[in-house]
Amino acid sequence: MKGLWRQPFGHGDPHEAYAPPLDPSCWAGWRDSRRVPDDVGYGAVAAYAGPPEMPPGNGMKVLVLGAGIAGMVLGWELGRAGYDCTILEARTRPGGRNWSLRAGDLVEETDSVQRVRWETGEHLYFNPGPARLPWHHDGILSYCRLLGVKLEMMCNENRGAWLQDDAAFGGERQRNRAVVHDTRGYVTELAAKAVDKGLLDHPPSMEDAERMRSFLRFYGALDRDLVYRGAARLDDEEDAANRPKPLDFAQIIRSDFWQGRMMFGEFPNQAPTMLQPVGGMARIGEAFGRKLWGVITYGAAVTQIRRTESGARVTWKDAQGAEHAAEAPIVVCTIPFPALRGVETDFAPATRAAITGLEYIPAAKVAFLAERRFWECDEGIYGGVSWTSRDITQVWYPSAGLQARKGILVAAYIWSSKLGEAFAAKPLDKRLEDALEDLECLHPGQRTALRKGISVSWKKIPYNGGAWAEWTRSARQESYPTLRTGDGPVLFAGEHISDMPGWQEGAVRSAHYAMLRIAERAQARKT
Amino acid sequence: MKGLWRQPFGHGDPHEAYAPPLDPSCWAGWRDSRRVPDDVGYGAVAAYAGPPEMPPGNGMKVLVLGAGIAGMVLGWELGRAGYDCTILEARTRPGGRNWSLRAGDLVEETDSVQRVRWETGEHLYFNPGPARLPWHHDGILSYCRLLGVKLEMMCNENRGAWLQDDAAFGGERQRNRAVVHDTRGYVTELAAKAVDKGLLDHPPSMEDAERMRSFLRFYGALDRDLVYRGAARLDDEEDAANRPKPLDFAQIIRSDFWQGRMMFGEFPNQAPTMLQPVGGMARIGEAFGRKLWGVITYGAAVTQIRRTESGARVTWKDAQGAEHAAEAPIVVCTIPFPALRGVETDFAPATRAAITGLEYIPAAKVAFLAERRFWECDEGIYGGVSWTSRDITQVWYPSAGLQARKGILVAAYIWSSKLGEAFAAKPLDKRLEDALEDLECLHPGQRTALRKGISVSWKKIPYNGGAWAEWTRSARQESYPTLRTGDGPVLFAGEHISDMPGWQEGAVRSAHYAMLRIAERAQARKT
Repeated sequence: MKGLWRQPFGHGDPHEAYAPPLDPSCWAGWRDSRRVPDDVGYGAVAAYAGPPEMPPGNGMKVLVLGAGIAGMVLGWELGRAGYDCTILEARTRPGGRNWSLRAGDLVEETDSVQRVRWETGEHLYFNPGPARLPWHHDGILSYCRLLGVKLEMMCNENRGAWLQDDAAFGGERQRNRAVVHDTRGYVTELAAKAVDKGLLDHPPSMEDAERMRSFLRFYGALDRDLVYRGAARLDDEEDAANRPKPLDFAQIIRSDFWQGRMMFGEFPNQAPTMLQPVGGMARIGEAFGRKLWGVITYGAAVTQIRRTESGARVTWKDAQGAEHAAEAPIVVCTIPFPALRGVETDFAPATRAAITGLEYIPAAKVAFLAERRFWECDEGIYGGVSWTSRDITQVWYPSAGLQARKGILVAAYIWSSKLGEAFAAKPLDKRLEDALEDLECLHPGQRTALRKGISVSWKKIPYNGGAWAEWTRSARQESYPTLRTGDGPVLFAGEHISDMPGWQEGAVRSAHYAMLRIAERAQARKT
Repeated sequence: MKGLWRQPFGHGDPHEAYAPPLDPSCWAGWRDSRRVPDDVGYGAVAAYAGPPEMPPGNGMKVLVLGAGIAGMVLGWELGRAGYDCTILEARTRPGGRNWSLRAGDLVEETDSVQRVRWETGEHLYFNPGPARLPWHHDGILSYCRLLGVKLEMMCNENRGAWLQDDAAFGGERQRNRAVVHDTRGYVTELAAKAVDKGLLDHPPSMEDAERMRSFLRFYGALDRDLVYRGAARLDDEEDAANRPKPLDFAQIIRSDFWQGRMMFGEFPNQAPTMLQPVGGMARIGEAFGRKLWGVITYGAAVTQIRRTESGARVTWKDAQGAEHAAEAPIVVCTIPFPALRGVETDFAPATRAAITGLEYIPAAKVAFLAERRFWECDEGIYGGVSWTSRDITQVWYPSAGLQARKGILVAAYIWSSKLGEAFAAKPLDKRLEDALEDLECLHPGQRTALRKGISVSWKKIPYNGGAWAEWTRSARQESYPTLRTGDGPVLFAGEHISDMPGWQEGAVRSAHYAMLRIAERAQARKT
């Protein structure tokens, strides 16, 4: 059993520094910037170790606030170890940001309500929150295995998808593969020049210069003269006429394509293999919820957390507004900080400052029911992500229901603070209209196929108030240790209290970290 | 309806020349070498035009030999247009090389019989033939849509898979991502040197040299000095200790990794998105077979093809050995040439020479039932392909049944002539034993999980005699036009009579081409 959990390979140290590119604004909000060492990283550190071995709980009470991934991992693991665990959840469903919208579902923001009016269909879902499971996120993948959540392949980067930048190529969309292959060709041509001029010093001596040239020629699809003339290899001069014209290198450099967009699929958390649960990301939360039937109290909105002599006392309101209270020697709070700021607490000043100071990304998504999967029928796009310089930022094509008649198209995925704030402020109709307008640059004339749009602005989702924590380096240095230690009887968990913020894997690992702290306290009580 | 077929984008001209790398032997049998212009191609030409419009058949007889993809496309399209089409198929199942082995199936080679002794399970199948549907193979994908064959994502290149070469890194396996990222880093460092020395002439003038450097730094994950020191970006010197050590560039160059292996996923026919039918590739052939119930005569082994005054006469034997004959003004022969060589014909000398001369690849595969999906549990590999310099060449991990208890591992995929011939000559036990031994270099100690191996050597499969046609450039020039024209009343179709040999897409397009020839003859009869 234990063997299942232990993974003999590491996945990069999320603490490592990130060097911003020339123009930092282009990078603002890039999801992986702070938490993964670099765009092409691999290597050292932090293999998933599985849940810690717990000392027997012997009925020791633990109160968990929030039935998201972190809270439910705690509920599951503590229950298995004999702790008496209760989870208070403000919503009437488990999962938190692990959420899939399907026919009939409600989206409630602070000032609006939307009803999902799509047909029922296993593939007709929309994940407003997380939508990717990278292959090396062993924690969350292990729980999928444990819970029997069926997984399938998800195509993340697709050579057939589009890149579009209003500032380059006259705003014309380009196929990912054209940009990727031409860029590699031009860079390799430059490298060949360096070899030609004897600038090769890394490694200091290359025995086989001929092999080096042969490698570069192959790598960059260069011609006999080690020049890149487009992706076709042309030894036969008579074929020259058929040579596809490569994109202008200067335009590529001028575009924002290279700043992540044309190679986002090489980032450690974005590279293949990417997985997804069959039927929507919420399959994970739903499976946890079934296992924790009776452990989770739904509709329990926490209003107060206060220390007592023997632990902490949590006050909460039920859906009818009636007040309740629960006490436990240990409370694990997974409530996202924007929501926690509205809870009355007697935390220490340093804890309060940390809670107040942590930034959250106001990410947002828009999805439409497509009456026709035009991206497949007309453009040969099956899954993956297109990028545009316009506000919608990304368009996601479903990796499920391929060649079905209808599909759910994610027509916007916004994750920069500025755009997210502006999006949050828009009326619902305007969000949809603007998304459709932006979409024209990627899929001209196709908006007529899109209907029944739904938008989710995490900033305005009650009990969240933001999509995920965005740690600055200074906050990380000052507040993170404080929060990891907890505040007396109260421990913190959730993606924000992890080395992988913004990922469900972070939530899992934060829960395991909290378990270590609980184990210490359980041991201390015994002795 | 018609709109569904027309695709507004092109996919590279398969006629274009291929420039072999330094050592041509490393390249022998590379599947795409002759038929796709280059490893990173995209661009011009040959959008899928859909099936040709046919003049009404008015019951005109067409006899099709072979119920593989080409034959069944013909059967389907001709039937729709009012032709009286009969398909003779030597086997008792439709599909030909479109084939999935499942519990209880038989594999009959010329001198052996194997029974598949695996459990039943939707994901417990093995495709001895084609196993990939690239996103731009619009012909075969269109028929999947038409037939209602459910598709799913297939992971082809996986950054988590292994590359292994006995001649480099002491034979130690390397993760794909390490090789890919380190290679890009080193090449980009060289390019930066060229920029530094003012060797930049493509494009002749780059306005923003600073932006160029910034681009290169980002692209290659270079450090501040534009040096590649491993995939981590390290501006903070204190982090230097955590830097993952990059692979030695000289070793990468010395290895065979770069000759396709580390970038096979960038070849046009190998790049994402890659698709597969749910439940096995044979779902396509099976669906065609159901549609063509009554059109296909099974167990009909063709022995003779001879001209008559009004067309051709085909003699065939049924399973009991009884002889039958059929006549038609047009016969379309899709029988693979190694098998056709055993049929008595009165073809013209040029046709016979073309049939005799065409080479076929003796490709082979081995698959095992894995009692435990160790590649997922222990190594985080979900789908994709590992490569080794040893004879098994490739190991394929299933893209279906993720995290299930058991799975089918393709432990060898051999497609070079030399290795394929040697494999064909081995006894069944030896094939499996050798594959397991080779597998040790990729998955040490895991062979104990593998059982009930099945091997398929296409050279020894009756009615095939080889996996796919391998056109030399001279054969292409001399014989291809002859074969495309046909031999009097006999037309030829199949992957070998196409611009995309070795792919089901080629079979579809060859069938459409044959339809054009049939249409001409139908018109000629009318006037």
